[in-house]
Amino acid sequence: MSVEMDLLARVLDNVRQKRPVVHTITNWVTAGDVANALHAIGARPVMAVALEEVEEIVSGADAVVLNLGTPDPSRVEAMLLAGRCANRLGRPVVLDPVGAGASRFRTESIRKILSELRMTLIRGNRAEIGALAQRGGELRGIDAAKGPDDLYGAAKKLSQETGATVVVSGPQDLVVRGERIIEVGNGHPMMGLVTGTGCILSVTMGAFAAVETDPMVAAVGAAIFFGLAGERAALQGKGPGTFKTALLDALFTLTPEDIKTGARLKG
Amino acid sequence: MSVEMDLLARVLDNVRQKRPVVHTITNWVTAGDVANALHAIGARPVMAVALEEVEEIVSGADAVVLNLGTPDPSRVEAMLLAGRCANRLGRPVVLDPVGAGASRFRTESIRKILSELRMTLIRGNRAEIGALAQRGGELRGIDAAKGPDDLYGAAKKLSQETGATVVVSGPQDLVVRGERIIEVGNGHPMMGLVTGTGCILSVTMGAFAAVETDPMVAAVGAAIFFGLAGERAALQGKGPGTFKTALLDALFTLTPEDIKTGARLKG
Amino acid sequence: MSVEMDLLARVLDNVRQKRPVVHTITNWVTAGDVANALHAIGARPVMAVALEEVEEIVSGADAVVLNLGTPDPSRVEAMLLAGRCANRLGRPVVLDPVGAGASRFRTESIRKILSELRMTLIRGNRAEIGALAQRGGELRGIDAAKGPDDLYGAAKKLSQETGATVVVSGPQDLVVRGERIIEVGNGHPMMGLVTGTGCILSVTMGAFAAVETDPMVAAVGAAIFFGLAGERAALQGKGPGTFKTALLDALFTLTPEDIKTGARLKG
Repeated sequence: MSVEMDLLARVLDNVRQKRPVVHTITNWVTAGDVANALHAIGARPVMAVALEEVEEIVSGADAVVLNLGTPDPSRVEAMLLAGRCANRLGRPVVLDPVGAGASRFRTESIRKILSELRMTLIRGNRAEIGALAQRGGELRGIDAAKGPDDLYGAAKKLSQETGATVVVSGPQDLVVRGERIIEVGNGHPMMGLVTGTGCILSVTMGAFAAVETDPMVAAVGAAIFFGLAGERAALQGKGPGTFKTALLDALFTLTPEDIKTGARLKG
Repeated sequence: MSVEMDLLARVLDNVRQKRPVVHTITNWVTAGDVANALHAIGARPVMAVALEEVEEIVSGADAVVLNLGTPDPSRVEAMLLAGRCANRLGRPVVLDPVGAGASRFRTESIRKILSELRMTLIRGNRAEIGALAQRGGELRGIDAAKGPDDLYGAAKKLSQETGATVVVSGPQDLVVRGERIIEVGNGHPMMGLVTGTGCILSVTMGAFAAVETDPMVAAVGAAIFFGLAGERAALQGKGPGTFKTALLDALFTLTPEDIKTGARLKG
Repeated sequence: MSVEMDLLARVLDNVRQKRPVVHTITNWVTAGDVANALHAIGARPVMAVALEEVEEIVSGADAVVLNLGTPDPSRVEAMLLAGRCANRLGRPVVLDPVGAGASRFRTESIRKILSELRMTLIRGNRAEIGALAQRGGELRGIDAAKGPDDLYGAAKKLSQETGATVVVSGPQDLVVRGERIIEVGNGHPMMGLVTGTGCILSVTMGAFAAVETDPMVAAVGAAIFFGLAGERAALQGKGPGTFKTALLDALFTLTPEDIKTGARLKG
């Protein structure tokens, strides 16, 4: 395996030590859960969206996460301001293209964001990544109904076009950068029962990227960590309520040692 | 009783099989809980509100729910666009007139929605239904302080004026369509301790109406199901925190068989 | 000690008896938790923000809480309308200056609010209070990184300038009015792990101020009560998920007797 386990585990340690500020422009459906997850991981959330302050806030942040969950023109404008500022300052930017392909407005907004900003990481489900790479894929609501036939090819194309590391979430998370690919097998089916697990994974990647300059290491580390949290939460969860509560607990209690012993990697 | 138990139980089965997409334009206070509840039931939530995409998103949805919790002119406009689109496509539309009567703006917005759209279901508390039927009723905050003197008469009037099946939530849920009335006795007082139980009941009705063409069956089935979830959650809940967690679990674990054995109906 | 314990305990009793309507203009990150907390305490939440209805809604409320968590110009305008209306009607107004000092827009918005409205209570962390009193302090995200050197002096200055009772949250809550100061030692470090505990403390103060005319008594009572809830929740909490759930339960189950026996006061 091409990523060292010690390195992956150390990223979590660094998040807990440095407590990075992660500025997230996100949807109002899962914003509370996302903020709580960032706190649980050890990071500090900020969620300012007003055009009047977004650049000033970003200049004090260690990473920026842009989530297209409930977009409108003003929020897309805020994302562009935040992203440009982060690009200028050399801070990592993570894109979560929620619902890419579900509407022209959403697809065009995401394309505009991708054409104007340099992304460090892009994380979506297989339908979203397929739509962004123009390789097919289909959503039902915001869940993936169908991915592109060649998922790896789509992720690779998107990575090459954007320069970003691309993460495709699913039973196996695919982390792709150019020709490089790593598969993360951690996770649990119950994660699909809770709204916002994708959003939380994206900000986890933001927190990891804030303290780790290699985006591949940050993404793989975050995918293992979040997958392990889901596995641990599933031991407690009798349904989505108790599962979600246990997931927040697990994000707080998991240790770097857990990453080393629990990681399931291929690639 | 005029509704067959097998039929009611089958609706839940159909929701779990077909996993309908329920597009909900709702308030930002309880949006996360509402999305999680839809997931728990087996449906798929979408919550787009931008005028730029709302019609396109609705055209891929199986039901639409309009919730007046935190209205503003733009959100009301989105509701009108979404509702017209759903009416055109023959998809069920559920209205949750939160706070009807609490302000002129809210009352007028709801009237405009009712005058321009055909509703499948309207669900509110007794004060809200009283206000909409212009038969009296009084709110304290968004909780009913007082209902109209003749609650059944108010619901019947509103049903006849709108053509919708009207549901009045309370210790006994009243489901009224024209001359027809069914009372559902399921539920638990702890449901009143948690913000958003009304909103969740409304989207549950949306999910049920998405797979069942008789709105009376959908509404009665949803009221029994949600009431039973509250009863089950009350066994675990030591306060509103544990109750809310257990409620989400119950929405996930309840079976069609539970509906058949647990329903408390009159009418 | 200059505040009688019976008096403090009675405030909670009065909240549960009178069930005051607390109108909160708040951020969309923690709005759901804030509404649930108000319910759990025994109060009734309303969260209308549309300029079209905010005054009418405020006229039916018993207290107003203004939270700067995710400000934008329209929301600030709604706060001014709500606050003026509350001032005119003699209803208590609580300000939670989230992120004061984090951006010029935020600082100016808060200054405008303070210059146009009479506040009953102002509650912030030490960096926010330091920034408002222009005595220094520094934020990382929205958490206090550093307070002013003379915290009591800053709080006293802000209280004298505004006429409000000022509460500085921290391991020891400082409640300051003019020359008077009381320290509340209740609370638990786990409260810092959950997003929105500050927001919840502010609306708790709103609910207490709605039924108690002495703002010092309302603030001290609310600080003890909320701190005790955190202490009780910490007994159950294995992480931020279970802690947050237990916190909502504790807000519901704590009794006036618990306040009398558990209060830790100085001053």
